[in-house]
Amino acid sequence: MSLMNNDPPVLGDVIAVLERTPATLAALLDGLPEVWATATEGAGTWSPLDVVGHLIHGERSDWIPRARHILAGDPRPLAAFDREAQFKESSGQTMSARLATFERQRRENLATLKAFGLTSEDLSRRGLHPELGEVTLGQLLATWVVHDLDHVGQVARTMAKVYGTTVGPWSAYLSILSDRPRP
Amino acid sequence: MSLMNNDPPVLGDVIAVLERTPATLAALLDGLPEVWATATEGAGTWSPLDVVGHLIHGERSDWIPRARHILAGDPRPLAAFDREAQFKESSGQTMSARLATFERQRRENLATLKAFGLTSEDLSRRGLHPELGEVTLGQLLATWVVHDLDHVGQVARTMAKVYGTTVGPWSAYLSILSDRPRP
Repeated sequence: MSLMNNDPPVLGDVIAVLERTPATLAALLDGLPEVWATATEGAGTWSPLDVVGHLIHGERSDWIPRARHILAGDPRPLAAFDREAQFKESSGQTMSARLATFERQRRENLATLKAFGLTSEDLSRRGLHPELGEVTLGQLLATWVVHDLDHVGQVARTMAKVYGTTVGPWSAYLSILSDRPRP
Repeated sequence: MSLMNNDPPVLGDVIAVLERTPATLAALLDGLPEVWATATEGAGTWSPLDVVGHLIHGERSDWIPRARHILAGDPRPLAAFDREAQFKESSGQTMSARLATFERQRRENLATLKAFGLTSEDLSRRGLHPELGEVTLGQLLATWVVHDLDHVGQVARTMAKVYGTTVGPWSAYLSILSDRPRP
């Protein structure tokens, strides 16, 4: 099997990752001292607290609404996604509250996804992305997975950088410390 | 508070991350389909399964033995760490078995760390790294934390790349897909 392929994803593989993300983030973040939870990589970058708010917004506004749009055969472009919505919507909510909301929404959305009873033909159905042009439902579901993993990686990277200088000379071996910030 | 500082880490902040890593990796990886668990970023890079084996080797051979060495005031260089040991030591062990071993070893090592009853003076105690020269116990403990987070990030990145092309045009938005492999 090559890593390069244009086949749609296997639905069971998609769900296996999506259903693990809330527990992964809860294990990593719930009850953590503030020094970790509110750290950023600098001005304009997100803390772990911000990231969980962003994931909540995605559950509300992005993945399932877009899947419905494509399944309905709606020829209009998919609604644009607000990448900064968490700064209003989740403002003032604690990490524990955000993690619980994310867990519940993800569980409900996966129940909805399973209830679609998608066939492999459905995964090839097409929609119009407002910026990227033609996309498929399979690509949307694969993107949901990679988006989760991207933000898990971002949380780990952001936390690591709290100790960017505290590690002393070991920074030479810890490549995560020199990885990009995320705008 | 600046991110740049040379103060030793706060022991409670160190333990808060270290005690969460086994559950984080178990939530992310236990029971995952093979397509995720054994994926790599290409020749010479590690799968999530390899990473957990590497973390087990670190629990056995790196962090606590090095802390004892420094606390004993041993003037000899710290023992070198074998970054490839997992390919022999954990060979043939399932993901679930590795996760359980890692959880148990980490729990025991944190009990040992707490039993040291470290003072902030202890955190400034010095040892000799075989390649990096003079290091402190505080830097060693901060490195243990960042090393965990580096590998959590690596697992997320490696899994994401399984869908490197499956996401179609969305790859333009998913920066994790173009992040470095880890040699």
